[in-house]
Amino acid sequence: MIGIFDSGVGGLTVVKAIRERIPDHDLIYFGDTARTPYGIKSAETVVEYAIENINFLVNHGAVIIVMACNTASSLAFEYARERFSIPIFEVVTPAVELALKISRRLRFGVIGTRATVQSGVYEKKIIENNPEAKIFSIACPLLVPLVEEGWLRKPETAMIVKKYLHRLKIRQIDTLLLGCTHYPLIKALIQRKIGKHVGIVDSSICVAEHLEKYLQNQFDRAHLLRKNGILRLFVSDITHQFEQMAKLTLKENVKLENASV
Amino acid sequence: MIGIFDSGVGGLTVVKAIRERIPDHDLIYFGDTARTPYGIKSAETVVEYAIENINFLVNHGAVIIVMACNTASSLAFEYARERFSIPIFEVVTPAVELALKISRRLRFGVIGTRATVQSGVYEKKIIENNPEAKIFSIACPLLVPLVEEGWLRKPETAMIVKKYLHRLKIRQIDTLLLGCTHYPLIKALIQRKIGKHVGIVDSSICVAEHLEKYLQNQFDRAHLLRKNGILRLFVSDITHQFEQMAKLTLKENVKLENASV
Repeated sequence: MIGIFDSGVGGLTVVKAIRERIPDHDLIYFGDTARTPYGIKSAETVVEYAIENINFLVNHGAVIIVMACNTASSLAFEYARERFSIPIFEVVTPAVELALKISRRLRFGVIGTRATVQSGVYEKKIIENNPEAKIFSIACPLLVPLVEEGWLRKPETAMIVKKYLHRLKIRQIDTLLLGCTHYPLIKALIQRKIGKHVGIVDSSICVAEHLEKYLQNQFDRAHLLRKNGILRLFVSDITHQFEQMAKLTLKENVKLENASV
Repeated sequence: MIGIFDSGVGGLTVVKAIRERIPDHDLIYFGDTARTPYGIKSAETVVEYAIENINFLVNHGAVIIVMACNTASSLAFEYARERFSIPIFEVVTPAVELALKISRRLRFGVIGTRATVQSGVYEKKIIENNPEAKIFSIACPLLVPLVEEGWLRKPETAMIVKKYLHRLKIRQIDTLLLGCTHYPLIKALIQRKIGKHVGIVDSSICVAEHLEKYLQNQFDRAHLLRKNGILRLFVSDITHQFEQMAKLTLKENVKLENASV
């Protein structure tokens, strides 16, 4: 199976993007809702949680892992790759590749959690590819709770998004990377506030495309993957809020299973 | 020592209130910042975390426990009292007592996290004391992240507080219970938005007064308590944000120690 994890509900935007591209593949998702959010926590803690989550998915039959969490991707990918021998995907690299492809003036904005922005991983990866690029990053720590609360269309959310994006707007960016898997749920609002001339890169779509190509071309154990279109959703804490947001994100009925890591 | 715990920074309002009343007593604080916040999580998870936190404090010499977290107080107090033989204080009862004393028309508002409000503990305790009382409770899940971010004076916070309190205002409450130890940090804003004729009950002050009286009158092991005015602050995850908020709340320099439970 393909195993996917996130700190909570955000990674379901990745699940949705993957199911749109390869609907037959069985997926197992783990949302660490008992310890969510990750983005306000230290690097050491995020690494520890990510390793535990991958162990859980591997023990439940995952042979490919997708880190559907930018915070974990930014801080824990290298550790995870050293620790596990199966293929592990993260959400940063595919987004950076697309951003470099679509940008005309190489002026990039990155929004993410505090932990993701502090890691500097987007700057590093963009500069490695093109040292001419200018990157402006803003931590937007309130967007995760606003999305988790389902405040997607409230004026307060619009005000807070505008306040965060103002600092990118005055830098005249031409491309904005959504560095958190929660943000696709307010993509239209973000587009409105940053301006329609700015290209938005949605890492949930990028990683799904990346995974699809990989399965078509490079993965030599494709026969190991079950293809019954099954999606199992595990969470470390079952709450009504998560169930609501999962239905809203996936646009299908969901059954949550409780699990501790 | 007196052991105090919270999911994060909120319980420091209780520490501050206790230090103002009994400054000589040594205090040990545990903030569960690696798993914060509690208020969006299920009752089972909150109980499990509370028991682990108390064990930590007891293992570090605490002989009295203060649950400086309304979510834990609401959901885990009964379990904790059964499990441990030392005195345990929670923040709900002292606040309810004061609220009943100051209310003229017995129309109470309660604001708290989703978990606290869902527990119904305030309604239960108020009605037990006075069946005539009317209680209106509102979950305000975004206030914890706003306070943790330090957005104490931002217009967006004011708008969100106004939106939450509107539903209590139209009920013409005369007394408002701050059912979360984060809220004293925005007490002036809450007072402004609910109206100056409404009495506000701050559970952090109530529990500190309660503890002071208990130590003066009833506690037979007072000689066991060290009185060097020491405050040790343990957190399960050290972040810059917590350090900033701790300084702001306690109005003194702090040294954080890392601990896992």
